Amino acid sequence: MLGLMQDWPLLIHKIIDFAALQHPRREVVSRLVEGPIHRTNYRELRRRALKVAQRLERDGIKLGDRVATLAWNNHRHLEAWYGIAGLGAIYHTVNPRLFPDQIAWIMNHAEDRLAFVDLTFVPLMEALAQRLPTIERYVVFTDAAHMPATKLKNAVAYEDWIGEVDGDFRWAEFDENTAAGLCYTSGTTGNPKGVLYSHRSNLLHSLISAGLDCLPVGANSTVMPVVPMFHANSWGLAFTAPMRGAKLVMPGARLDGASVYELLETEQVDFTAAVPTVWLMLLAYLQKEGKKLSSLKSVVIGGAACPPSMIRAFEEDYGVEVRHAWGMTEMSPLGSVGSIKPMPAGATPDEVFACKVKQGWAPFGVEMKIVDGENNELPWDGKRFGRLKVAGPAIAKAYFKEERSILDDSGFFDTGDVATIDPNGYMQITDRAKDVIKSGGEWISSIDIENLAVGHPDVAEAAVIGVAHPKWDERPLLIVVPKEGKHPNTAEVLGFLEGRIAKWWMPDDMQTVTEIPHTATGKINKLRLREAFKDYKLPTG
Amino acid sequence: MLGLMQDWPLLIHKIIDFAALQHPRREVVSRLVEGPIHRTNYRELRRRALKVAQRLERDGIKLGDRVATLAWNNHRHLEAWYGIAGLGAIYHTVNPRLFPDQIAWIMNHAEDRLAFVDLTFVPLMEALAQRLPTIERYVVFTDAAHMPATKLKNAVAYEDWIGEVDGDFRWAEFDENTAAGLCYTSGTTGNPKGVLYSHRSNLLHSLISAGLDCLPVGANSTVMPVVPMFHANSWGLAFTAPMRGAKLVMPGARLDGASVYELLETEQVDFTAAVPTVWLMLLAYLQKEGKKLSSLKSVVIGGAACPPSMIRAFEEDYGVEVRHAWGMTEMSPLGSVGSIKPMPAGATPDEVFACKVKQGWAPFGVEMKIVDGENNELPWDGKRFGRLKVAGPAIAKAYFKEERSILDDSGFFDTGDVATIDPNGYMQITDRAKDVIKSGGEWISSIDIENLAVGHPDVAEAAVIGVAHPKWDERPLLIVVPKEGKHPNTAEVLGFLEGRIAKWWMPDDMQTVTEIPHTATGKINKLRLREAFKDYKLPTG
Repeated sequence: MLGLMQDWPLLIHKIIDFAALQHPRREVVSRLVEGPIHRTNYRELRRRALKVAQRLERDGIKLGDRVATLAWNNHRHLEAWYGIAGLGAIYHTVNPRLFPDQIAWIMNHAEDRLAFVDLTFVPLMEALAQRLPTIERYVVFTDAAHMPATKLKNAVAYEDWIGEVDGDFRWAEFDENTAAGLCYTSGTTGNPKGVLYSHRSNLLHSLISAGLDCLPVGANSTVMPVVPMFHANSWGLAFTAPMRGAKLVMPGARLDGASVYELLETEQVDFTAAVPTVWLMLLAYLQKEGKKLSSLKSVVIGGAACPPSMIRAFEEDYGVEVRHAWGMTEMSPLGSVGSIKPMPAGATPDEVFACKVKQGWAPFGVEMKIVDGENNELPWDGKRFGRLKVAGPAIAKAYFKEERSILDDSGFFDTGDVATIDPNGYMQITDRAKDVIKSGGEWISSIDIENLAVGHPDVAEAAVIGVAHPKWDERPLLIVVPKEGKHPNTAEVLGFLEGRIAKWWMPDDMQTVTEIPHTATGKINKLRLREAFKDYKLPTG
Repeated sequence: MLGLMQDWPLLIHKIIDFAALQHPRREVVSRLVEGPIHRTNYRELRRRALKVAQRLERDGIKLGDRVATLAWNNHRHLEAWYGIAGLGAIYHTVNPRLFPDQIAWIMNHAEDRLAFVDLTFVPLMEALAQRLPTIERYVVFTDAAHMPATKLKNAVAYEDWIGEVDGDFRWAEFDENTAAGLCYTSGTTGNPKGVLYSHRSNLLHSLISAGLDCLPVGANSTVMPVVPMFHANSWGLAFTAPMRGAKLVMPGARLDGASVYELLETEQVDFTAAVPTVWLMLLAYLQKEGKKLSSLKSVVIGGAACPPSMIRAFEEDYGVEVRHAWGMTEMSPLGSVGSIKPMPAGATPDEVFACKVKQGWAPFGVEMKIVDGENNELPWDGKRFGRLKVAGPAIAKAYFKEERSILDDSGFFDTGDVATIDPNGYMQITDRAKDVIKSGGEWISSIDIENLAVGHPDVAEAAVIGVAHPKWDERPLLIVVPKEGKHPNTAEVLGFLEGRIAKWWMPDDMQTVTEIPHTATGKINKLRLREAFKDYKLPTG
């Protein structure tokens, strides 16, 4: 027997309809690539999103068509998302930090028909245009006054383009499982894989993650997604903020410490989210300038492990609550967030901190388990580590244009991460499965050692890779970037680790480099690192 | 083109699975009808819910069968809900405050096959049993020691009954639109109507309402649903609390001021919800005993309009934030909650208070509009009032066993309420459509006048009804219950209203009564009041 409740499909355009009605004058503030700060609100943003949909339809874009965006976080990018999805087309966020070859591959694989492009990325598109036969038109996110001379096919300034329609348009109607967004993962091996989000999955992701313990976003919040919209949906914030009526601050292209600080203060942001690299720059700026944060209450840090020293700096020096998070493009992306559950009476600050260092716990709507090599579930004891698998309504079951399911027999997706989960549900990534160091049949977590090593006062960044060993199969090698003007030596840094890790985890050696390679999303590129050290031999004896 | 995200149906049992895994030791504290305080947790509660499902299956209960519950808020009632729904059967909450005839009618209409009954309601069931042929077994929510001698068919003590199975059971699998719960509305006219909730609608209702601005429920919350589970799903809290990992305090049968206060304090409740009647008792107790509230932060008040004086008492005398809410059984039930959106700079406390007195604003997932007699949408100006219509995924489209859609052509449900909505989205119920007083072709809101009249120091309760008038069609009559030992006179009370309402809204007379009749859910029974005054004549001149 079915219930007798209304058939009200979970569609993205309902979010902006809601915000325009219930929070019409709530601001969306953007730092434009043209320079100035731009202010609009949800009512106006919806009005222009309707124009985008209407104008796209006039350009022949239909249900299911892919429309690329190469853009920073700003109001036009947001309008375009709602306009594209409201027509039943698919916004395809292209990460402009990828290698040009990857960008061309991705846009051809997606068969994008139209591309929205920030001024910043016009030269990139010009360099690639010959290799992008499916793109019929480039719409540059600017007005006539700032429009560059360009030979891009049918290029037009966005403001002129939407100016040709009146916005008298109704959102299309379709099933809630209709595809809404496309984002490619930037793996270090093989071709990128497209994750195809649906209206339902995006909506549920925001409903699941908006809350006291996950993303604290309400009608009185001022939210700044520093995490780009091209980085896994800006962790849902482009949907979550209007869904809850929050003021939205879009930082555009300038993510340096001074620029981020300026917006945090002038707009009185209370919640923000980004990868650790951004926060390193902000903290360095705050320290150098002796500045304080007057409005910021909490920050979600994810995309890469957050060093414990960063958590301490935010919480102890600046009074900002850190929520350590973990997720994946395949997960829309949030998988866990590190708010603190009630602690037992008498818990010490160190015990609380030990929870914060982990990647948090999965909210309702994300199922998690860890398994051993034979796919047997491992206990949540905080010690055993195994491959992390996940299930939920906002998690991928297959990649775009690949029919094969990526789920196991129990319907779980293998994240490729290795993790522990403790009895209180806090999950901690110990490694990427492919980066785990297999020593004498046991696993050593490279990330644990890295997190400890960056605690050494002379170490700016640290990476650990496995190096072939005749007896133990692999042994860990520590690679560090020294802080400016410092010259850490091997004995001293390894001595610093002593007593903090199991003896058999102790790296056999340390090497100093001027730079550690990163992927386009800011993670340590272990593949390139292993290549760089492929001829390296461990000291004997 | 469809998205490629996992098929993860929104099923109720996933909530208790989640709570048992992520918040296993989070407490569920109940005041039992047997007397003592009982403590359990989500892990244990899930274990017993699985036994309920297993044991129901052994009793032959199948997908789609209705299972009645006549019970207060306690852990057994909660276990039973999850057990029933986890089998794909339908929990049918019967409001024991209805007239016995209505209860018999409802249980026969639902064709309930089994009934869970609190000790309190065994005599009620014994009195009705002959008229309930579809009930095959009565399971009394108690243990063998407290089991009364009864001739109820196949009667068994709940603890003995679930003791017969081991809990080695898997939840059933089915579509998320499968019916999960049934609750009848207790209208003042006609037969009750059954609202048939689905797994999807219950889950979405909790996701929509759990948040900073609606129900502030998180892993560090301690939540006491004073609103009964038989009153429109306890406003979703039986799902929302475990979904967010909150401690749950279930007050059982004793809802007097002293008992509610005791639980608020001993369990350190920070969030609670109930109808105004309960809070009147609590506030009277607090004032009489000179007590303070040491942990309570916010309270949601709904089910009937909250008098402004109650908001002031909570906020000014006890430091508790009041969120005025509105909803209906047909809406699962939440429609709007009165948290305060950002106010313009320079807003006065009186302007904030004026927003709090209204019934709040609709969160994402509840669409609202007001229409005139010709179904034209009215502006949100805070002045024009019209019939309130709603749409959303947790709102009914038809009643149980009635095929007819209850939606209009645009897919909206007519609430039967009359309301204004102001430019900031705050909705205010001005009347039930059938209670509006039509005077000279214009509408007068009875509720507005009632809310003002209870502000008079000598008035305990007030009601306004329309009385026939030869010239104006109807004119308002004010009916008041005096405070103990007080003797308000007509001229003085009407004088108190002067300047606070439009002149033509001024009641033509006032009558004093010892009691105003209420419906089973605590609302003023205007139908009975109009009957009682049917021979009353307005003063002439």
